[in-house]
Amino acid sequence: MPMPLKVTPAAGRLMVMQTFSVAIAGSHEPRLEHAAQRFLRDLSRQTGYFLSERLADAAHATLTIHADRGGEPVQDLGEDESYELEVSSGGARLTAPNPLGVMHGLQTFLQLVDITPDGYAAPAIHIEDTPRFPWRGLSLDVSRHFISIAVLQRNLDALAAVKMNVLHLHLSDDQGFRLESREFPKLQDLGSDGMYYSQAEMRELVAYASDRGIRIVPEFDMPGHSTAWFVGYPELSSGPGPYQIERRWGIFDPAMDPTRESTYKLLDKFIAEMTNIFPDRYFHIGGDEVNGKQWDANPKIHEFMQAHNLKSNQELQQFFTVRVEKIVSKHHKFMVGWDEILTPDMPKDVVIQSWRGQESLAEAAKQGYRGILSSGYYLDAIQPAAQHYLVDPLSGAGAMLTPAQQKLILGGEACMWEEFASEENVESRIWPRAAAVAERLWSPQQVQDVNSMYLRMAAVSAQLEQLGLTHRSVRAKMLARLAGTDDIAALEVLARAAQPAGVSVRETEAEKAGGIQTSDVPLNRMVDAISPESEEARKFSAAVDRFVASGFQDLAAESYIRGKVTQWRDNDNALQPLLQNSFLLKEVAPVSQNLAVLGSAGLQALDYIDGRKATSGEWKVQQVAMIQQAARPTADLVLAVAPAVQKLVEGTAAAASTP
Amino acid sequence: MPMPLKVTPAAGRLMVMQTFSVAIAGSHEPRLEHAAQRFLRDLSRQTGYFLSERLADAAHATLTIHADRGGEPVQDLGEDESYELEVSSGGARLTAPNPLGVMHGLQTFLQLVDITPDGYAAPAIHIEDTPRFPWRGLSLDVSRHFISIAVLQRNLDALAAVKMNVLHLHLSDDQGFRLESREFPKLQDLGSDGMYYSQAEMRELVAYASDRGIRIVPEFDMPGHSTAWFVGYPELSSGPGPYQIERRWGIFDPAMDPTRESTYKLLDKFIAEMTNIFPDRYFHIGGDEVNGKQWDANPKIHEFMQAHNLKSNQELQQFFTVRVEKIVSKHHKFMVGWDEILTPDMPKDVVIQSWRGQESLAEAAKQGYRGILSSGYYLDAIQPAAQHYLVDPLSGAGAMLTPAQQKLILGGEACMWEEFASEENVESRIWPRAAAVAERLWSPQQVQDVNSMYLRMAAVSAQLEQLGLTHRSVRAKMLARLAGTDDIAALEVLARAAQPAGVSVRETEAEKAGGIQTSDVPLNRMVDAISPESEEARKFSAAVDRFVASGFQDLAAESYIRGKVTQWRDNDNALQPLLQNSFLLKEVAPVSQNLAVLGSAGLQALDYIDGRKATSGEWKVQQVAMIQQAARPTADLVLAVAPAVQKLVEGTAAAASTP
Repeated sequence: MPMPLKVTPAAGRLMVMQTFSVAIAGSHEPRLEHAAQRFLRDLSRQTGYFLSERLADAAHATLTIHADRGGEPVQDLGEDESYELEVSSGGARLTAPNPLGVMHGLQTFLQLVDITPDGYAAPAIHIEDTPRFPWRGLSLDVSRHFISIAVLQRNLDALAAVKMNVLHLHLSDDQGFRLESREFPKLQDLGSDGMYYSQAEMRELVAYASDRGIRIVPEFDMPGHSTAWFVGYPELSSGPGPYQIERRWGIFDPAMDPTRESTYKLLDKFIAEMTNIFPDRYFHIGGDEVNGKQWDANPKIHEFMQAHNLKSNQELQQFFTVRVEKIVSKHHKFMVGWDEILTPDMPKDVVIQSWRGQESLAEAAKQGYRGILSSGYYLDAIQPAAQHYLVDPLSGAGAMLTPAQQKLILGGEACMWEEFASEENVESRIWPRAAAVAERLWSPQQVQDVNSMYLRMAAVSAQLEQLGLTHRSVRAKMLARLAGTDDIAALEVLARAAQPAGVSVRETEAEKAGGIQTSDVPLNRMVDAISPESEEARKFSAAVDRFVASGFQDLAAESYIRGKVTQWRDNDNALQPLLQNSFLLKEVAPVSQNLAVLGSAGLQALDYIDGRKATSGEWKVQQVAMIQQAARPTADLVLAVAPAVQKLVEGTAAAASTP
Repeated sequence: MPMPLKVTPAAGRLMVMQTFSVAIAGSHEPRLEHAAQRFLRDLSRQTGYFLSERLADAAHATLTIHADRGGEPVQDLGEDESYELEVSSGGARLTAPNPLGVMHGLQTFLQLVDITPDGYAAPAIHIEDTPRFPWRGLSLDVSRHFISIAVLQRNLDALAAVKMNVLHLHLSDDQGFRLESREFPKLQDLGSDGMYYSQAEMRELVAYASDRGIRIVPEFDMPGHSTAWFVGYPELSSGPGPYQIERRWGIFDPAMDPTRESTYKLLDKFIAEMTNIFPDRYFHIGGDEVNGKQWDANPKIHEFMQAHNLKSNQELQQFFTVRVEKIVSKHHKFMVGWDEILTPDMPKDVVIQSWRGQESLAEAAKQGYRGILSSGYYLDAIQPAAQHYLVDPLSGAGAMLTPAQQKLILGGEACMWEEFASEENVESRIWPRAAAVAERLWSPQQVQDVNSMYLRMAAVSAQLEQLGLTHRSVRAKMLARLAGTDDIAALEVLARAAQPAGVSVRETEAEKAGGIQTSDVPLNRMVDAISPESEEARKFSAAVDRFVASGFQDLAAESYIRGKVTQWRDNDNALQPLLQNSFLLKEVAPVSQNLAVLGSAGLQALDYIDGRKATSGEWKVQQVAMIQQAARPTADLVLAVAPAVQKLVEGTAAAASTP
């Protein structure tokens, strides 16, 4: 995963043993050697072998790598990323036009290696592969909650594993300015609570990414989402100040003052400094969600607008963005911005990142702008991987574009906003679901089988955990903390059956409770610990479907279902004392009771089904009512297994008339 | 844990909230601030709160720290480590003569904080605490398998958590030389396979340790265990060479040549360089297990011995060690060495580390030498924590010493040798069992209750995992790799019931199988994945004891036992397909079958007991035979639950005559 363009299985397999070795033929560069050594380390982790990182002669190597030429000095959008991988029982050969393809091919090879009854092995196979889109990224908000370098590195490892090639860092917002500026040190000194990256750290991260074939695209959001700038530099804002770092979530009034030359002077100096840290050719200036209230309230800005014939705040922002674009291009970068920057006067080489819908992306392409899709890829919205998976940059409005216009759609970025995630659990929010987006952006459009995707995503998820990611292990760790003990088997049963109700429920519930969600509110609840998508619910639902489809004859499915519903029915008794003992778990006590209700309902239904006994309409209505009650969001959780239990209850009628 | 010297509980408790803050009163130094910030970070991890690391005013702080004075510029053996901690509902106050005591007190505070129905809280309490021994360490072999800096750092965090104050690094052995020497670069260039610490890394590690109140004592083993030196510097050896890095485990012939002046010149330069990296006042020169074969085989050495009236290899080693001691003390260090260096001519300020038994430690003390105990604390031997716990430096021969002699016993070190551990699983070999040794060396001698120790050790274990250690999470990760899937519930059942059979079984079995254990042999088997001590076996055994002791009336115990034995009986069916699918798991197929046998036997016994039905003598003999068969080491594992199952079977007779 992502599924390659062309796969031709062959007979036999390559055994992967302790003697496994790699040689580099063809073009040489440090990045290739690093890639080969990293590959050997990853293979070590994946097998437990102690593999030597020393490279071998091509004559004796198990795997020979051949790159035709070196890569661009600074990785560029649209570099050839294709590769060809040939695995046979005698060895493997990986060829690519340049090191990027080699890196992708190495990741494919890692995914081919599996444990077998006789040893580790990769099947004999021939693969020709190339990505569908050249821009495949993850946009990561490090402003609302800071994410340390070590966690960013792990995410880069994961991006490389699924062949993504962009990490877009949202480095500033109302809630924090996260990168050291030497020109304007008050940005981080006053705007970050001490949580920022030093320039040295960021340069190292850029090198780390580049070594893995990943571009880092920095974003400094302007003119809105910029309160954190103003704590140190209130003169940059359109209001009187003074400012504090914003602790709440939402859209806020402060905005840069587009009418003063000093604003552009500062930005020029700032962007000059930043483009020196980020070699990438693209520079993101945000541009989203300016509410204009500070502009409305400032008479000088009114005067300026009249003098320059700017009729609306939108036109004022356009004026600002055009000025900023000149600065960005002066520093030899292409400007990237969110939907809102798309205005008539913009040069055609800016890139539009669409977050408001596929329409705006298509609209941009029609006007000749390049674009990347993020709408539909918001991981923080806590939706099933399948939902993201089926969003295609060239479906909907994109499908109506001419081929030339379609070429302007560069790809997409999964987005992870951090209001409700911190560095502790952010990996679990991103992975493995981002792999579904990675496949959408890499593989042929017709690769769409959701079941196959989930199977392969589970394998990727296991692989990432072996690589060192914590997206799965964090659950047990957080649950143990919630429970105040490691003895959490019963809590795990509940955790596996539930999933977060989603961000909008969480926001609504917090409001209802009279609380305000801020960056100080701990993210240490059950909802923060569990996976965004319940694998157990998916498996249980599939088993119920199989059972029903088999005319209630599939005994394996029946036994699995019975095991689960019995466990759910009985779990609450064991769990309640634990829940009552923890102020953080008390809120899930009703969820645990609800799971018992679902278990009972399912078990009753199963007994009726097995006995082929007719149920009364009244019983069914009652059960469904109870199930739906139990399925309601509680403690910002939902019991994702409820719909499948309801199917069981509804299946009793059909079963009664089945032999 | 370790249990403090004096604990006085009080009424009430201190709520630990998001507003928790720390102030430093009294003496100030960077180490204190680091300690306070680290404490806040640890408390954050432990609670999930976003705590500010900024220090508060003493007037407003939840916890006030007061150190009377600063610590020694270089942490010294015997610095006062005492502290006093007062917790009340209004706040907490920690006072200590110096920063070391403060750090210990902060660790105690962290252990007091627990989750409650109303919030996080620490009980009101007054603690006066000071360690029993001044040298409380972990000796870690980084030669046989290399351990990266990150893993060493995690171990330092854990040592600090249990108030240990020495990390002794075994930096060279036949299998590898692990530290960069600039004077003699071939040491690492040819003696390490590229796996060594740079001087910069080691200096940082020393600072990291010092920041946590931990001394790093380096060991360079000589004149034996030194093959890795000779790969680059064969002229240092007593044989003709050339040399390769040794891949096997054991005792080998190569030894330094004690008869040449060039040997001492080199060592002088080398020790000068190393003492520059390690500020600690103690320097360990190993000195163990010289077999003398190279000396026997070298005529020049014979001549030298005759000329110097050295009558045995032992006397020759003594000659060498005395010379080396002069070098070490010239560089202002006290020499430390293993048992073997204890010889009549040795100055009284050397320290003897006893690995061969408590007698040698007592013997050293009688002769006026200071000593530290490691015999009985070998973690790599894979023994229960209780066994290490009950080894006291001042029991046995030590108990016979005069008070003045007893004072020469400085403490002890848990030892982790790395033949059968790598950096992947070494944490699980060390933790939490090393905490039992830590308590032995810190707490009053009469603190000996094993059950209480296990309870508190479980809490420490959970705490360490929250701190970032991987000693528990590595099991699931390795099991998933062995299985090739994350779906390992059935494998976990087996893993929890089993434990490693111990290193001697492993060595014997490997020999029987005709294999040689070397550093190339992967440590990726089931035996490497599971915990050294089965918690489940301990719990199950305790439940059986309770059940029997209650006259078979304890229904909670009965239900728990029934649940377990049923699970074991049924687990094999679910597990076998997984085992057969993995070449690494095939070897545990019989262990899984044996667990089913134990489950069946236990369940049968339980049914007899519940029915108060007499069993035949024949049945019992048969069952016990089956159980003992099932309990035999297989695949280097033992089913640690077997003895308790046997108790159940044997309990049937008593039950039959119970009302």
